[in-house]
Amino acid sequence: MNVTVSGRTRHFRTVTFDCRTNAVLLVEQRLLPHAFKIVPARDFRDTACAIRDMVVRGAGAIGASAAYGLAQGARAFRGSNPAKFRQHVQDVCQTLKAARPTAIDPLNALNQVRAAMAVGETVEEQQALALAAAEEFAHEDVRHCEQIGRYGAKLIREGMRLLTHCNAGWLAFVDVGSATAPMYVAQAEGKKFHVYCDETRPRSQGATLTAWELAQQKISHKIIADNAAGHLMQRGKVDLVIVGSDRTLGRTGEVANKIGTYAKAVLARRHGIPFYVAIPISSIDWNLKSGFDIPIEERHESEVLGAWGTLQDPESKIQNPKSRARAYVRVANPGSGALNPGFDVTPPDLITGIITPVGIFKPRELWAKRRQLGGV
Amino acid sequence: MNVTVSGRTRHFRTVTFDCRTNAVLLVEQRLLPHAFKIVPARDFRDTACAIRDMVVRGAGAIGASAAYGLAQGARAFRGSNPAKFRQHVQDVCQTLKAARPTAIDPLNALNQVRAAMAVGETVEEQQALALAAAEEFAHEDVRHCEQIGRYGAKLIREGMRLLTHCNAGWLAFVDVGSATAPMYVAQAEGKKFHVYCDETRPRSQGATLTAWELAQQKISHKIIADNAAGHLMQRGKVDLVIVGSDRTLGRTGEVANKIGTYAKAVLARRHGIPFYVAIPISSIDWNLKSGFDIPIEERHESEVLGAWGTLQDPESKIQNPKSRARAYVRVANPGSGALNPGFDVTPPDLITGIITPVGIFKPRELWAKRRQLGGV
Repeated sequence: MNVTVSGRTRHFRTVTFDCRTNAVLLVEQRLLPHAFKIVPARDFRDTACAIRDMVVRGAGAIGASAAYGLAQGARAFRGSNPAKFRQHVQDVCQTLKAARPTAIDPLNALNQVRAAMAVGETVEEQQALALAAAEEFAHEDVRHCEQIGRYGAKLIREGMRLLTHCNAGWLAFVDVGSATAPMYVAQAEGKKFHVYCDETRPRSQGATLTAWELAQQKISHKIIADNAAGHLMQRGKVDLVIVGSDRTLGRTGEVANKIGTYAKAVLARRHGIPFYVAIPISSIDWNLKSGFDIPIEERHESEVLGAWGTLQDPESKIQNPKSRARAYVRVANPGSGALNPGFDVTPPDLITGIITPVGIFKPRELWAKRRQLGGV
Repeated sequence: MNVTVSGRTRHFRTVTFDCRTNAVLLVEQRLLPHAFKIVPARDFRDTACAIRDMVVRGAGAIGASAAYGLAQGARAFRGSNPAKFRQHVQDVCQTLKAARPTAIDPLNALNQVRAAMAVGETVEEQQALALAAAEEFAHEDVRHCEQIGRYGAKLIREGMRLLTHCNAGWLAFVDVGSATAPMYVAQAEGKKFHVYCDETRPRSQGATLTAWELAQQKISHKIIADNAAGHLMQRGKVDLVIVGSDRTLGRTGEVANKIGTYAKAVLARRHGIPFYVAIPISSIDWNLKSGFDIPIEERHESEVLGAWGTLQDPESKIQNPKSRARAYVRVANPGSGALNPGFDVTPPDLITGIITPVGIFKPRELWAKRRQLGGV
């Protein structure tokens, strides 16, 4: 999407690949919204670290990073021994897979790249095929998000008040985003609407990333504490909820997404508010038979016990230019610990529809539509 | 309750009155958990500011502060002209009432003190009656919390996992607390249990105040992001929810409490988890006929857009002694605003029971029990 930095507007993708230096280039998301910077991951271990440490996050974006990471790792192999190359590729995949457990996109991306490589005979051929497949994964992610935008925009009517949780925007994908794609298309169609961004503690991706994206696109929005959504729904101030997903089970229609999504779905149901999940095809898991089998990442307690930001006078909107560096404040009682599950699972009965690149379906229809959705 | 500061354990109340200096003495809650300090409010305007700026917060604690504030204001009057004194008392009440709108305790406290003053004839008599009535309000708050503890403790069984939201502990009252009172009694009875403290954004009273209280009392607990409660309930990890209330409608059983309470009640209902609200009698509003008429305080957006804490290395548990000063970090996108409602209203159908000083009732039974509960 377009980003305006110091008055200049340029188009960026969240994840790209530099063939010349064999580096994965990433928008450093931990610096946003306070600074916009592209950083290189110079080898596949760097790329895995960038995924694990959330330099890059979001289902599609870590999928593309894993795809590029595998190409990067394959391309770094010196020699022509196929057995040694196979072992190396295996190691690269293991390292990339281990970076984050809940999202299915990296696994689907790695499988796609490995399947493409399989038709190559020499190491060199396989290296070239790996890069081509990674590029294709990234381009497909963008096309899918664009198609999600076209289907989803039909749900947004003039004057609506939307709610979204976490960031399923272009920063969470290669471009465009899943939950935000319908908003961008609706805006281009000239519709006026308002978006409430759940802050999304503990990492505050709603307050930092989604709010930044919407501000860049000049879409009317306000940040709310995660606690406030129920009250707004009860007072009739939310018309539509759209969220993303890190893993959607094709067999059951269950949706794993950022912690807190489930509560919003339960509240939306109570108030009869449509609740949609927007996903590219790479976010579908066709194998698992139950949401209880989705590995839920447990993250470090420091995320819950404090907050990252830039030092500022709370009454002032002007940022102290000397204090733009990130600072961590410990909020919680020093003697207390925290529990920090990163994701939760929303059952299909709470989901009005899944917005996919080929149409909007009921969650339990996914399995019947599996051919259309690229499932086996 | 007992507080251990630098190895020494002493008993404190949240709000007390110093007759000699005519000052309301308050635990400065904005410094907790990082420092424990008692600060004086030297006149009734100071006391109103302390309520407004949340030096003191919590239903019973601001009730007692308002009661003492009125006595303080009355005692500061110089002269013996009854008409001028009446006008002065009127002004004092207006100032104290305006400090925070949602909680009913300050209004009930002011009415109680004024009713007591009415039997006095001279200014001097009325001044003495005001102080006696304020002291009685504070003592009654403590007695009520103790009785809540005895009734509520019966709900806590060995090995249970409890959830509480915000702080309805002794810091929110004169002593003991409402939602925490059953925990303290159950602990004294030798029961083992665990408490999840909702962080309670935006002001994080769960992570700062409740966690500090429970740590002081050596009760097993963990802080969770507000987003995590639904997931824990879904996975069968919560057995009982107890929260406080800033205003409970005696006619309908609706409960106004810290923003986010409503979502927890909706989630608890979905999972068949008992949801209790603990209240002293001063938190009951016998007049309002609908929860929609409860004034919901809108607070400053800076609370949502950032966080207060002490600067620290996130990986370390050791606090830099030089950095114990409170710091505010801006978390959110600098160009974005926030909406910050401070409270929400939970309807009676989601509440298993109201724990009062005279017993546990269904929310809709309150009106029938109004004589027992001190209503008219």
